[in-house]
Amino acid sequence: MNIIREVSAMRAWSRQKRAEGKTIGFVPTMGYLHEGHKSLLSASVQETDATVLSIFVNPLQFGPNEDLDRYPRDEERDVAIAKSAGAEVVFAPTVEEMYPNEMYTTVRVPALSAMLCGASRPGHFDGVATVVSKLFHIVQPHQAFFGLKDAQQAAIIEKMVQDLNMDVRIRTCPTVRESDGLAMSSRNKYLSVEERATAPELYRSLEQVREWVEQEEWPIGEILQKWRDRLQNMECAELDYAEILDYPSLQQPDLNLKMKKGQHRWIAACAVRFGQTRLIDNVLIGTHAKAETVRQTGGNAICI
Amino acid sequence: MNIIREVSAMRAWSRQKRAEGKTIGFVPTMGYLHEGHKSLLSASVQETDATVLSIFVNPLQFGPNEDLDRYPRDEERDVAIAKSAGAEVVFAPTVEEMYPNEMYTTVRVPALSAMLCGASRPGHFDGVATVVSKLFHIVQPHQAFFGLKDAQQAAIIEKMVQDLNMDVRIRTCPTVRESDGLAMSSRNKYLSVEERATAPELYRSLEQVREWVEQEEWPIGEILQKWRDRLQNMECAELDYAEILDYPSLQQPDLNLKMKKGQHRWIAACAVRFGQTRLIDNVLIGTHAKAETVRQTGGNAICI
Repeated sequence: MNIIREVSAMRAWSRQKRAEGKTIGFVPTMGYLHEGHKSLLSASVQETDATVLSIFVNPLQFGPNEDLDRYPRDEERDVAIAKSAGAEVVFAPTVEEMYPNEMYTTVRVPALSAMLCGASRPGHFDGVATVVSKLFHIVQPHQAFFGLKDAQQAAIIEKMVQDLNMDVRIRTCPTVRESDGLAMSSRNKYLSVEERATAPELYRSLEQVREWVEQEEWPIGEILQKWRDRLQNMECAELDYAEILDYPSLQQPDLNLKMKKGQHRWIAACAVRFGQTRLIDNVLIGTHAKAETVRQTGGNAICI
Repeated sequence: MNIIREVSAMRAWSRQKRAEGKTIGFVPTMGYLHEGHKSLLSASVQETDATVLSIFVNPLQFGPNEDLDRYPRDEERDVAIAKSAGAEVVFAPTVEEMYPNEMYTTVRVPALSAMLCGASRPGHFDGVATVVSKLFHIVQPHQAFFGLKDAQQAAIIEKMVQDLNMDVRIRTCPTVRESDGLAMSSRNKYLSVEERATAPELYRSLEQVREWVEQEEWPIGEILQKWRDRLQNMECAELDYAEILDYPSLQQPDLNLKMKKGQHRWIAACAVRFGQTRLIDNVLIGTHAKAETVRQTGGNAICI
């Protein structure tokens, strides 16, 4: 398996593959791979001829007081995982290689970037859209795979690709969870024993919200209130946000609305801080909301 | 020659050409072609295997009080010109084809967009960068050709391509002028007889500015003052801006600075309103500033 560090070499590899008529699958990551990333790699290997995994901790998407410097890294382990998953290339450029000049250009999807994680991380999604745009131009994939754990990110990338006529198909894959329901995340390693024991409450509360919504008894305003009360009572955790929005438009539905089967597709999404560590999770509810989660212990991930 | 109106058909054509190992040249325009566009087509036909001309009057780059609706159009004539210049395809999509959904995504190069034409046309260059980004993704050219008459646009596109790692080479070609020096523009047709007689004063004043700068006697602050006085005295015309900036950074040099041979590359650029019609022109001065203009009556356009 190749480890490529230069933009020009990555582009040359992609040109060659395309000239040979091969399809390229792409899994962009910040490294420190977990089962969620593995499921993306597995989908890509299954559905394209040649898979590229990128590892790049992108400074542009971190705010000044965020965890850029302490973001976990383990390239050796990541390369071994990529290899055993069947990837052909790991693209792992330096920051200088990705940003050799002062960046003047930004790709923005402001209408999808202001809410949820964008509210507490201003500029974050501009950084994401810009770096993914760069990576798409370098890797030139036919398909790119994103996890639904970062549902807002997936919605933004899908809209960017549609709006800018980028020639790549975006595939979104179910969130992969520990057996107790905690969504896989590179940041989970920072949890203390006590925090780790509490953290599955995020997903348990999301399953409760889905049940409440699907019962079609209460308007979502009431469900939101009950859910926020529950999250605010969590031990050693501070609620950042808990929202129910239309997906993928991320617009706030009328709070007096009740779910009607087959008519809505909503996302219930939350972010909670455990000390310095901020975890996010979500579930999709309603039309086409099937198969958006898979437990580590089994189940077939169906990417859409 | 093909006239293509659909994004999917344009993309299929480009894919086919690339699969055949052909290089694609691209000349994006808003139509109503003049000698300036012809010189771009000619450079593309000479230097690539297959040339695409696009005609698209892009609503995104027009302000609410600008001339979108009255922008001149003559597709039949444009197609004939493209054909006789040796283009293989005219890509002429409708607004609905280019913007089938509400646009949420913007590509911006704010540090190069606030001055010169950007100051009096807020949002204009965001619209340009966004539509050129879309067109590049659709046409997938190896090289794209832009005229130096729109020097700020060329600087923005070059920086966008560099920052976002777009896989296309940007070529800039000299401004083509009438025999009396007036820069070719689709908007020249709106000039009255009197305005048309006055309009060459823009270029005459620019040549004067170049001479003053190259004499290295006066600081640019003084030259600017003399130049603005001259333009403000023009008949039936209103000065919008006259600036001397570093090129392509578009930063304002120290006004006390005098030119030093081989050390600077500056642009002198101005915009003047003749009634409803706004004309722009510029010259490059200093290092590598050769060959940025060519008279219709002869001369070899050397695109860089």
